[in-house]
Amino acid sequence: MQDKLTLMIPGPTPVPEKVLQALGKHPIGHRSAEFQELVKRTTEQLKWLHQTRGDVLTITGSGTAAMEAGIINTLSRGDLVLCGDNGKFGERWVKVAKAYGLNVEVIKSKWGSPLANSEFQQALEADTNKQIKAVILTHSETSTGVINDLETISKHVKNHGKALIIADCVTSLGACNVPVDAWGLDVVVSGSQKGYMMPPGLSFVAMSKRAWEAQKKSDLPKFYLDLESYRKTAVKNSNPFTPAVNLYFALEVGLEMMQKEGLQTIFDRHARHRSAAQAGMKAIGLPLFAKEGHGSPSITAVAPEGIDAEVLRKAVKEKYDILLAGGQDHLKGKVFRIGHLGFVNDRDVLTAVAAIESTMQSLNLLNCDMGIGVAAAASALH
Amino acid sequence: MQDKLTLMIPGPTPVPEKVLQALGKHPIGHRSAEFQELVKRTTEQLKWLHQTRGDVLTITGSGTAAMEAGIINTLSRGDLVLCGDNGKFGERWVKVAKAYGLNVEVIKSKWGSPLANSEFQQALEADTNKQIKAVILTHSETSTGVINDLETISKHVKNHGKALIIADCVTSLGACNVPVDAWGLDVVVSGSQKGYMMPPGLSFVAMSKRAWEAQKKSDLPKFYLDLESYRKTAVKNSNPFTPAVNLYFALEVGLEMMQKEGLQTIFDRHARHRSAAQAGMKAIGLPLFAKEGHGSPSITAVAPEGIDAEVLRKAVKEKYDILLAGGQDHLKGKVFRIGHLGFVNDRDVLTAVAAIESTMQSLNLLNCDMGIGVAAAASALH
Repeated sequence: MQDKLTLMIPGPTPVPEKVLQALGKHPIGHRSAEFQELVKRTTEQLKWLHQTRGDVLTITGSGTAAMEAGIINTLSRGDLVLCGDNGKFGERWVKVAKAYGLNVEVIKSKWGSPLANSEFQQALEADTNKQIKAVILTHSETSTGVINDLETISKHVKNHGKALIIADCVTSLGACNVPVDAWGLDVVVSGSQKGYMMPPGLSFVAMSKRAWEAQKKSDLPKFYLDLESYRKTAVKNSNPFTPAVNLYFALEVGLEMMQKEGLQTIFDRHARHRSAAQAGMKAIGLPLFAKEGHGSPSITAVAPEGIDAEVLRKAVKEKYDILLAGGQDHLKGKVFRIGHLGFVNDRDVLTAVAAIESTMQSLNLLNCDMGIGVAAAASALH
Repeated sequence: MQDKLTLMIPGPTPVPEKVLQALGKHPIGHRSAEFQELVKRTTEQLKWLHQTRGDVLTITGSGTAAMEAGIINTLSRGDLVLCGDNGKFGERWVKVAKAYGLNVEVIKSKWGSPLANSEFQQALEADTNKQIKAVILTHSETSTGVINDLETISKHVKNHGKALIIADCVTSLGACNVPVDAWGLDVVVSGSQKGYMMPPGLSFVAMSKRAWEAQKKSDLPKFYLDLESYRKTAVKNSNPFTPAVNLYFALEVGLEMMQKEGLQTIFDRHARHRSAAQAGMKAIGLPLFAKEGHGSPSITAVAPEGIDAEVLRKAVKEKYDILLAGGQDHLKGKVFRIGHLGFVNDRDVLTAVAAIESTMQSLNLLNCDMGIGVAAAASALH
């Protein structure tokens, strides 16, 4: 049967019908008063989601565009930065920073393990000359399903006193608590196809006052991603370039739904789904890839021993039309990932666990009675 | 009455119902076989539209992102470039080039006049040491409604033998003939909210073999707009970053409609609409802003003498819910612009002329019998 796909990947995530309807409206002029009113409303909504009184700017582009904007607007050629790297998106930070000639000191952890807070602490405390200009890391590492301890690392950065903290919150914002102001985060980037419950195409950059101070001194070349031009036009509820007007329609509706649900309820839902996905997988003997206690609220990565993860993933797609994500780079075939981020309810998670369990049974890979996994997931959902 | 807006601005342009329906579909995984099939189809369609056998890459971003990509992927710091500037988008080329430290020699014409082909010819012929690395210009200058003679300027560049030709065809592609291969254009950029008959959010960069040769030597920093990563993934019908999946759905349907109509019919339609808009405006005593014979097929800029163009434009919006574009920068209040680009039929142009004429009458600004303008436009449409 066609056209009954369920997305359980960490993006694009499922989109509510009314968000799609908003998306499919006739476009309006991006310099019209009507569009400016819309920008004004979405800007307020974005500040609510980020728990900030600072600026949150919207870029037409992917999350990577926002990551790049975060770096090139606050740093200068040759600047020393500490970059956390424990997965594909940590690696991406390193690549972006190096592409612009930054002096990158990498703090690495094995894929599946969280970044070590103490390594950041040590490096920052050792930097008595205050040479480190920024600490850059990924909060929820989409490739491994690991959540890094952004709150603690941010405290170490605050103790340093000079460095900025720049965070990729692409799969954490709208899934767990990311209080930008309370944690003192300077640059936070995210993307629309994640917790926002809308399709890809917009990305977001929150900038603190300290980030804007740094921006004044930044000498890296830029044009489309020059946040100064976004800030100048944002004052007039406008954009420097033609934005993806229809995606703004969708953004407003998605954020309205989020506001109606409330931040704490959203966070609880994601935490519950993490518990259910983890419990279901463990019950059927599938080990989690993320180190115990460090699983992301948005993605559960599973590393089935002695089973080709791609075979299982494709069989689930074939039989039940649920799209799971594969492993990236060296994890291909070793890991599959269940996305439970955004417009996902308890039924979706229960179904995903049931479908994986049932598919394992069909493939003669299930070493327990069918139903054990679903039971464990259901129990976690109660 | 609400929600019966007609867009007659040079972007966003009106979008057909079936393109909007495609846009509002549930997203699919951007790494799925289904999406790769879609990318394969849109890539072939894009090559058809560009009349090229070279690469046409799709970026999630505005047309300015594509302009920047065109420059930063083919040039290096300090390179000498000739930049045509006879309007806001020519100015933008100069700004982008300067932001990256290029050595920019500007060939200027007054807003409303076309670029002088002979000035390019002279500068290129004088460059016997072959220091000029690129000639950069806007084909259809959206801010003034002037079409520059890209074909002739490209011939001068070919005679030079070394320089690349980089063109902004944002409001010419899909409106008049832009045969990328036949004219030997090296980089051609465009945006989705124009001739493509879809909303903003995607932009496109066509790259010739010579452009890729230059790309190998380019030293400007980049990441999100690094076309090498787009080319590598395009081979697998994929993208380096998460693309705006839903906009691809719309792109395919819009291009299908264009293919059904046929290039020559599309070009004839735009030429006819230019004639009708021009004839209608002249008949009611409103002078055209673009120099006679150099009007763009997509935009007719009108410079009403002794009348505040903003007052007229707003009155047309108020009374008839037709959105015309205002003048940009120093032309604000002096010029209004009729967009007749993309999903525009004869009725739309006739209506726009009638609405402008009737609004002038209500404002006691019409110095002829009501109906003269519509009659002239209708005659041009026959």
